[in-house]
Amino acid sequence: MSTKETTLEEIVSLAKRRGFVYPGSEIYGGLAGTFDYGPLGVALKNNVKNLWWKMFVTDREDMYGVDAAILMNPKAWEASGHVGGFTDPLVDCLSCKKRQRVDQLVDEKQYKEVIKQVRERFLDTGSEDVKKQLEEKAVKYDDKEIDWLVIKELALKEVDLENYVGPHVQKFLNKLVSCPVCGKKEWGVPRKFNMMFKTYVGATEDENSVSYLRPETAGGMFVNFKNIIDSFHPKLPFGMAQIGKAFRNEIAPRDFVFRVREFEQMEVEYFVRPADWEKSFEEWQGTMHAFADAIGLPKAQVHELEVADGDRAHYSKRTIDFEFDYPFGRKELWGLAYRTDFDLKAHSETSKVDLNYLEDGEKAEDRFTPHVIEPSLGVDRTVLAILASAYTVDELGGEERSYLKLAPAIAPVRVAVFPLLKNKPELVAKAREIYMDLKKAGVACMFDDNGNIGKRYRRQDEIGTPHCVTIDFDTLGEHPEHKNTVTIRDRDTGAQERIAISELLEKLRS
Amino acid sequence: MSTKETTLEEIVSLAKRRGFVYPGSEIYGGLAGTFDYGPLGVALKNNVKNLWWKMFVTDREDMYGVDAAILMNPKAWEASGHVGGFTDPLVDCLSCKKRQRVDQLVDEKQYKEVIKQVRERFLDTGSEDVKKQLEEKAVKYDDKEIDWLVIKELALKEVDLENYVGPHVQKFLNKLVSCPVCGKKEWGVPRKFNMMFKTYVGATEDENSVSYLRPETAGGMFVNFKNIIDSFHPKLPFGMAQIGKAFRNEIAPRDFVFRVREFEQMEVEYFVRPADWEKSFEEWQGTMHAFADAIGLPKAQVHELEVADGDRAHYSKRTIDFEFDYPFGRKELWGLAYRTDFDLKAHSETSKVDLNYLEDGEKAEDRFTPHVIEPSLGVDRTVLAILASAYTVDELGGEERSYLKLAPAIAPVRVAVFPLLKNKPELVAKAREIYMDLKKAGVACMFDDNGNIGKRYRRQDEIGTPHCVTIDFDTLGEHPEHKNTVTIRDRDTGAQERIAISELLEKLRS
Repeated sequence: MSTKETTLEEIVSLAKRRGFVYPGSEIYGGLAGTFDYGPLGVALKNNVKNLWWKMFVTDREDMYGVDAAILMNPKAWEASGHVGGFTDPLVDCLSCKKRQRVDQLVDEKQYKEVIKQVRERFLDTGSEDVKKQLEEKAVKYDDKEIDWLVIKELALKEVDLENYVGPHVQKFLNKLVSCPVCGKKEWGVPRKFNMMFKTYVGATEDENSVSYLRPETAGGMFVNFKNIIDSFHPKLPFGMAQIGKAFRNEIAPRDFVFRVREFEQMEVEYFVRPADWEKSFEEWQGTMHAFADAIGLPKAQVHELEVADGDRAHYSKRTIDFEFDYPFGRKELWGLAYRTDFDLKAHSETSKVDLNYLEDGEKAEDRFTPHVIEPSLGVDRTVLAILASAYTVDELGGEERSYLKLAPAIAPVRVAVFPLLKNKPELVAKAREIYMDLKKAGVACMFDDNGNIGKRYRRQDEIGTPHCVTIDFDTLGEHPEHKNTVTIRDRDTGAQERIAISELLEKLRS
Repeated sequence: MSTKETTLEEIVSLAKRRGFVYPGSEIYGGLAGTFDYGPLGVALKNNVKNLWWKMFVTDREDMYGVDAAILMNPKAWEASGHVGGFTDPLVDCLSCKKRQRVDQLVDEKQYKEVIKQVRERFLDTGSEDVKKQLEEKAVKYDDKEIDWLVIKELALKEVDLENYVGPHVQKFLNKLVSCPVCGKKEWGVPRKFNMMFKTYVGATEDENSVSYLRPETAGGMFVNFKNIIDSFHPKLPFGMAQIGKAFRNEIAPRDFVFRVREFEQMEVEYFVRPADWEKSFEEWQGTMHAFADAIGLPKAQVHELEVADGDRAHYSKRTIDFEFDYPFGRKELWGLAYRTDFDLKAHSETSKVDLNYLEDGEKAEDRFTPHVIEPSLGVDRTVLAILASAYTVDELGGEERSYLKLAPAIAPVRVAVFPLLKNKPELVAKAREIYMDLKKAGVACMFDDNGNIGKRYRRQDEIGTPHCVTIDFDTLGEHPEHKNTVTIRDRDTGAQERIAISELLEKLRS
């Protein structure tokens, strides 16, 4: 049955009921944009992360894992542009007092149009000096950000631009856009809002003690570039990899674990000679598709979007968004970007530490700043894509059932083991023996003797367990030719076959 | 050679040089109390965490893993007492303006004595009403905290106690204690300082949007107690487990990764019927010792400290600190506490959500609040204990060498593979083949053909690689009786033996 019919509500409900994902701090009324993973969610997530680490790090010989701190020296985020530019445009409804993101109030085209108009008008009326600066700045930031960022920056430093551009947008909103909460068209003047969570480190709360929760894991790798060079002397191309939490103060978290305030990333920064970027870019592109396959995402639901010239960060020569058909539409799942030497140059400039590369045996004048390919994957979005595409409703034995068609490599429970009857100690003992043997062999397994076999199948189907093994009287030798065999049932077809206990482990590992 | 002679400096230097642990944000001058794990540190840490998860969670049938958000609804930390009580007493030096922790300026005995004096004097002079409140409060907090906490709380609410008690401590300091920075004895009035990192969630920064970075992972489990009950209907005893980051704004982070601002915990909350607590307590005590063995901590360096009545949290009936002989002294490594029903009761009271337990089939009036046993282990302190106890200096072949005597189960590199000579393609090809086979089999291995064999051995010794395998001309059949054999060298003894390639994997896994 087509997964397109799956609703987000079904996924959210299953996730909570069966212990994959719960709302964060739920007994206290929650904390918007945070989620707690339950036992099956942790197992699924660990399988995804371990498989990623295997495919992106340990299967290769050119990768260096790091685990950098979430709290970093704030200068790292000045260098990366996050302190200045990692912002959302916000506006207050003067009637109901709720704050909204301007770019979510209007559709993207409208938003771009009004910004364009304001910008053109500004360029018409601004002084030559301001125009020049605006053009210089325009080189430093990507087009998406430039309007709010540059105008605001100039506004603070040079001219009264905020008061100039803000009212234009305000007029536009008041004319065309109703508040989604109260329906009025009474907007305040829009302003910038930095999405990094701020805190203070040490005994005093002042400018010198400000720190941020990292908004992405990438920074933790760039600041350790020199450490890796010094400890390992790697030859180009080589990469760094990190799995870890990142935080963004989203104004409107939504769509379950898709847009959240606390999330986990799996990122690679892969350093190459400038001439080699295309080869490495394509290699990682292939690895990302192989990973999508390995975790069982259907090819038909994964799409590549070549980000167009105008939409890419200015320093990026190529960016691919991997998009996925979520229940709420086609949205960004992962990203792959060629970031040139932008990051290392920026960190080197701000830190005054030389982040150039020189291969052993090369001359000092051959030092240069490596370029970067960045495959960036969100754990939570991946988990959601897995759940959404695995959720299937079909008919089995004349009854409707819903089940998770999870790839065996990532299923939280690989196999469930049942004694046919709960009240027959000899069946239970044999089932426990087989269960413990599988467990010892490192297979994720679950023992269940609750209710009848049909109900146990349904419970395992619902959490995506690929196989169920039942120990019955034949196992014990009721019919001698079946002694030491069990039935093994396939989740997707419901088909059962008898196999020897001695073949079980191999079957599950294949 | 005795590890007692190992200095912290040697460990810090090795950790940085070889890529275990780097100072956080180093190119920006660092951020005190944060550290970044390099490739070998990540591998070591992952081995420790995976082994813990196996022994504390997946090897058992009564454990439920969770991964809760770091950002939680602040009410969770009001319930746990962290908002009110998770404080350090601080005092400013009026001369050099540096801020210090009072309890670190004076030795513990002195500190307790002056607090006792102040408290006695307060009880002598305080009104009956305040005395009564103080006694009531004293039941709610443990003895360590009561003095600052209660007196400050009453001070704010009831009487001018801060001005009363503060100047007493100030007088004491001015009489006896010199500032460690400038040497003067000119202290301000001490005050409380909450150690949780504070941030704001959402578009506004006000009281209603305050959130904290969790100071421990425990809270993320207690708030999900009901979710686990609802999803899994576990029978008592059962437990929850979590590995994750926690944050404390230490005023004086120190001793490398021992006292840091950002750290990782491995915690279990194990729920029992009140009558069964001793049995479970002792079982976990055994598991913790077994874990210490498994990660290779020498028995002689791990000590149990029964925390005495007066030093335990008032609600705890038994607490054991597992202490370790670090280079800087015997310090707390892990903790094991019987916390009664304190946590679930406090969360239930604050959240107004029923956190009682009722077993299937029992009558409603049998509902009760389970009691809790909490084994709590810090990842970073564990890694430091491993490095410090593994660091060994001995003499091998007439030369001094330093090496890490890591247990094979946790060594970042399980085996290194060398071709005897770098410039013999047939040796290199065979070595690469063996290396790739081991890698495919999931063995953490490293290929090295740099420098002579002696240097390669030293490099592997220093990072704790248990075995080195060398491919030589005999491997290729120079002496037919040795064809398809390799030499395998033992890190600790330096002894080498020839074994068949076909036996290699089994040898490494044993």
